Amino acid sequence: MRVGLIRVLTTSDRRLLHAHGRLLQETFGFTVTSRCIFDQPSGVYDEASLVAAAPKVVQLAREMAAEADALIISCASDPGLAEARAAVDIPVIGAGSAAAAAALTFGGRIGVLGLGAHVPGPISDSLGERMLVIDRAEGVETPDAFLMPAGIFDALAAAHMLVDAGADVIVQASTGLSSIGMAEVLRHRLGVPVVDAVAAAGSMLISAVAARELRKA
Amino acid sequence: MRVGLIRVLTTSDRRLLHAHGRLLQETFGFTVTSRCIFDQPSGVYDEASLVAAAPKVVQLAREMAAEADALIISCASDPGLAEARAAVDIPVIGAGSAAAAAALTFGGRIGVLGLGAHVPGPISDSLGERMLVIDRAEGVETPDAFLMPAGIFDALAAAHMLVDAGADVIVQASTGLSSIGMAEVLRHRLGVPVVDAVAAAGSMLISAVAARELRKA
Repeated sequence: MRVGLIRVLTTSDRRLLHAHGRLLQETFGFTVTSRCIFDQPSGVYDEASLVAAAPKVVQLAREMAAEADALIISCASDPGLAEARAAVDIPVIGAGSAAAAAALTFGGRIGVLGLGAHVPGPISDSLGERMLVIDRAEGVETPDAFLMPAGIFDALAAAHMLVDAGADVIVQASTGLSSIGMAEVLRHRLGVPVVDAVAAAGSMLISAVAARELRKA
Repeated sequence: MRVGLIRVLTTSDRRLLHAHGRLLQETFGFTVTSRCIFDQPSGVYDEASLVAAAPKVVQLAREMAAEADALIISCASDPGLAEARAAVDIPVIGAGSAAAAAALTFGGRIGVLGLGAHVPGPISDSLGERMLVIDRAEGVETPDAFLMPAGIFDALAAAHMLVDAGADVIVQASTGLSSIGMAEVLRHRLGVPVVDAVAAAGSMLISAVAARELRKA
């Protein structure tokens, strides 16, 4: 299956651009084409950056739809999801709503691991009373911070705090954590399920569009 | 990853017993052990059969947990899900809630394809206003009916009616449809995403527990 992956940050670093696509390719066998929106090097991290990103995502969706069987908006805030769906004829999955959906299928409380105190809308809307957040004034503020050691240590500390506070499952509410393969590290260290938002998006396509894809991979 | 699969119907037919496990093994590379509850050859198809199944599922969950990394209750009604989670220390996924969650990550109206007019609780509870059902007095009434040509033709006709009525995605609300690989047939014929409930359950484990499993498979 050909997946068009919309990266909701601006980068000329090819390794970073393809980090999510490689995860989907290696996990599910998809053929992934990645493109990034322009002029947002720090991605989406607040209301203004979310509003700015949405029309750029929709524009990329239009451009990529002709050569893809499905699109993934690779950002936990699902910028432009409804508009992209209205604009194209193929399935469009948002990493944020996919991650929340996956987390909800596990039992108990869901710890949200992301940027500082900001919880992306698709995640806070879905999790309701099962959501557990930790108020951390000193947390990471933009997704690209997870590319640096300080951001990684910060995420690890926050994840431990969530489990200590009673989280039965962790949902990664920033795809910056997907870029560095953080979920696998956390699963080993914490012993609880950890939902990677990009993998969750791919999972939804596997369950509904291409369950047999992997045998061919 | 070792998955304990709880089949919520009674069968001595090894091909049928392992049909869901084979789907998970081939799709995700899991090592699957399947066991079935006793004394319910027609599975779960109404309130009484659901109530009867729940304690049997919990008993199997207790017995299988020691040799598994996660459990799947392979029935769209999720019998005994909450109790099984309370009884064991590993993740437990219900095929019904997993299927509903996966369907919700796609846009538009969700057509429910299952047994006659009965919609399993985890699916009707989750889908809310996005749910589309067709009232069919003559529909299939027990999951084992999908093993016979009449049941297969009936499911195909019902799926076409759902798409004609405006369904943008179909969710298979009976794992009897998983046993016969119906989702793949429907995807080709209907051109819309079709959620297989057993594959959806496996998808949730991939996104949260073992995203790297497939590379080893």
